Amino acid sequence: MNHTIFAEPLTASAFSQFGDVIEVQKNPTVVINQGNCNRYTDLADVDFIDHGRAGISLFKAVACTLPYTLEYVERHPLGSQAFLPMTQHPFLVIVAEDDHNQPVRPKAFVTRPGQGVNYHRGVWHGVLTPLHEPGLFGVVDRIGNGDNVQEFWFDTPYQVSQPGQ
Amino acid sequence: MNHTIFAEPLTASAFSQFGDVIEVQKNPTVVINQGNCNRYTDLADVDFIDHGRAGISLFKAVACTLPYTLEYVERHPLGSQAFLPMTQHPFLVIVAEDDHNQPVRPKAFVTRPGQGVNYHRGVWHGVLTPLHEPGLFGVVDRIGNGDNVQEFWFDTPYQVSQPGQ
Repeated sequence: MNHTIFAEPLTASAFSQFGDVIEVQKNPTVVINQGNCNRYTDLADVDFIDHGRAGISLFKAVACTLPYTLEYVERHPLGSQAFLPMTQHPFLVIVAEDDHNQPVRPKAFVTRPGQGVNYHRGVWHGVLTPLHEPGLFGVVDRIGNGDNVQEFWFDTPYQVSQPGQ
Repeated sequence: MNHTIFAEPLTASAFSQFGDVIEVQKNPTVVINQGNCNRYTDLADVDFIDHGRAGISLFKAVACTLPYTLEYVERHPLGSQAFLPMTQHPFLVIVAEDDHNQPVRPKAFVTRPGQGVNYHRGVWHGVLTPLHEPGLFGVVDRIGNGDNVQEFWFDTPYQVSQPGQ
């Protein structure tokens, strides 16, 4: 099995089976503030079960470098999880398909400035991997009781590279 | 009446009667990802009534300059509204107290990089006023039916300046 993953540019269509790309759309939902502000409304499937509610948190993560060694993914069975970068830096987004409760075929994406992501409920994903300091993100995820993390360590780590590396 | 407002640095204590400052705290709620990520959990009072739900939207607003002419404020009786800047630029935050359903004593704040705000439900506030392009913000507010905007135009506009201007 090939254990090298080439990160590709993040697009809504390539990411759709895993979640939402939170980004400016071709046309605003509505123009507000006397023409001074474009509003793009309701861009993510915010999905919490078992009496969870939406909370706004911050994550501040150490920046990583490519090639990145992917040993671990996790998923949240009780809720979606959105990441909004509070900088204009790109970050690395890693997801995997599920096969009988095991993550398979991991994929990696690199964002453009202005893109956030929302992992759909139950989607396997890597931990937060900014590519630049300060690695600060707004996070919208489920606040509530219950076991909301499932972890998986790959037997053989993957190497995530940019094309050309 | 004095119609000049001097914007002050945004702090949680100065802002507490109007909403939450979403910022890194002195200590993380939890350290995750094998020590690589600080999580600061549930920093805003996300408060939606009348069957609203949380949505994640983007706002892209034209940057303003100081001094800024404040003619208008609004409030959302059915829900809180959070703004997370997707850049490291400061922005201008304007709020006002309420007196018998009229906004009074407007105040202005300038954020530090890394600060977002959450206006509590029903708090009078100015429109989104970034101080730099691209003026891009993640927004968490109420998605749902109902009349959720009340508008107010001041008879005499205010001038919002930085101290020293």
